[in-house]
Amino acid sequence: MLRSRWLLPGAALALGAGLGATLSRRRAGGDAAEGLLGRLPVVPVVPAVAAAGPPALPGSAPVELTKYGLPGLAQLRSRESYVLCYDPRSRSALWVIEQLNRDTLSGASERAACDFQEDDSVHEYHRATNADYRGSGFDRGHLAAAANHKWSQKAMRDTFYLSNIAPQDPHLNQNAWNNLEKYSRSLARSNKNVYVCTGPLFLPRMEADGKMYVKYQVIGKNNVAVPTHFFKVLILEKESGEIELRSYVMPNSPVDDKIPLERFLVPIESIERASGLLFVPNILKRTSNLKAITAGSKR
Amino acid sequence: MLRSRWLLPGAALALGAGLGATLSRRRAGGDAAEGLLGRLPVVPVVPAVAAAGPPALPGSAPVELTKYGLPGLAQLRSRESYVLCYDPRSRSALWVIEQLNRDTLSGASERAACDFQEDDSVHEYHRATNADYRGSGFDRGHLAAAANHKWSQKAMRDTFYLSNIAPQDPHLNQNAWNNLEKYSRSLARSNKNVYVCTGPLFLPRMEADGKMYVKYQVIGKNNVAVPTHFFKVLILEKESGEIELRSYVMPNSPVDDKIPLERFLVPIESIERASGLLFVPNILKRTSNLKAITAGSKR
Repeated sequence: MLRSRWLLPGAALALGAGLGATLSRRRAGGDAAEGLLGRLPVVPVVPAVAAAGPPALPGSAPVELTKYGLPGLAQLRSRESYVLCYDPRSRSALWVIEQLNRDTLSGASERAACDFQEDDSVHEYHRATNADYRGSGFDRGHLAAAANHKWSQKAMRDTFYLSNIAPQDPHLNQNAWNNLEKYSRSLARSNKNVYVCTGPLFLPRMEADGKMYVKYQVIGKNNVAVPTHFFKVLILEKESGEIELRSYVMPNSPVDDKIPLERFLVPIESIERASGLLFVPNILKRTSNLKAITAGSKR
Repeated sequence: MLRSRWLLPGAALALGAGLGATLSRRRAGGDAAEGLLGRLPVVPVVPAVAAAGPPALPGSAPVELTKYGLPGLAQLRSRESYVLCYDPRSRSALWVIEQLNRDTLSGASERAACDFQEDDSVHEYHRATNADYRGSGFDRGHLAAAANHKWSQKAMRDTFYLSNIAPQDPHLNQNAWNNLEKYSRSLARSNKNVYVCTGPLFLPRMEADGKMYVKYQVIGKNNVAVPTHFFKVLILEKESGEIELRSYVMPNSPVDDKIPLERFLVPIESIERASGLLFVPNILKRTSNLKAITAGSKR
């Protein structure tokens, strides 16, 4: 009974048409089953939850509060090269996770064969377009980096969806941030695995009136949010079994690439507080052998 | 097999410890099964998804991308009086839905018996406290209004969780916004049901340099975001079966309460675009008899 109900379209109602729709409304190419989540043994959960059709509530619910759906929930995207949580308000991602190792870094895939493209799995109201970036003065900055996925042309191409892109200062994108990406790849070559989580930050600062404000530009007709900063969290799986955590924040502005990357290390807690995300509790469910590298611990 | 897997703690992994944890980590009082979702016939879905324990991945997944969890997903809260989606970055809600009708409006519950309280189902890094509001100059503005839930003292008390609260200009809270809440209740008395969805907006505006910026204050040690505007979407179920939609936006600043409420009607599309939420597609799954009332249609 539970099983059959679960497989019925209406069963996902309690999670809302929002979640169901976003999980099931993948891009036209339809690689729902091919993404990274698709290769996990637990994956039946996602298609089941994703199977939301029109809410088909039996008639006599005493309180039918979600009768007209839930207006929005997490918009998860699972692609060859990453799992991403979309933020429809900022028209970009909240976070993107990749897994890097010697295998994903080797291959003949070419960046020249990739084009930035709208993510048409996102509703047109909440989608960034190439036109939004044109003339803005910002680069289309990859969150999951293209060069991390030489193993598959498709995986590399998936990093060019504008849902995996945020407006980034060109100097930062092409220098210090690029160096951080290269460094992530070098760590992936010298460790068993590196899990990389990247995302935008919108940090407050004090203004002349002594009050704290968050302020950021939005670009284009679709008001794509320009982050004030970016974070990158590296979870290193060492051959020894030890897990090492390195977390970085860079401002979305020109950064002198002579400054050593260690200077951008921050305590993971500060990223967790500012981003609204949590990393450590999840990691501690998997290991008790965790070492966090912070700026302090390197000095 | 699917059934048993579904009931196992590890089964929710693909949705991430984030979602699982937030759905299952309810407040200490433990009314998980009592909330509004709890009375829907499809509710087994939520506890099932919520049953995430430590991720217990079998060893040989070819790509274990979510091995260390997903850092954040939708944080749904289902309480007596509302269903809410929490935004851990802003320390408030993305949206709150209530159902109003003659039953929910009648009763002897008293506001004096309620106190604003931290929502300890939210991680302490992402939680607003009463101290954050103290001396800020902002009211603790209800999203789901207390006076909508006279039917149950507990339902009323649940509206006082700070997850259902946003920093609101005191004049707005006590005048024009209060009038909009009263008007929602009057519509609930003259219709079969009114579904009310309320939330914050962070709208951009052009500055002197000709560029568009989003700017908002954050208050207290926890940087609780002060919305620039608030929206309220009313879905009216008429006795005739017709569905009428009225959507309002007010700035988070003093608003002359002599201005008729109709002046704050906006096309639903503008709320959908700005908030990152979607209402109409979900409603159209339930009815083809939808009439949207906008400022234009009232003139």
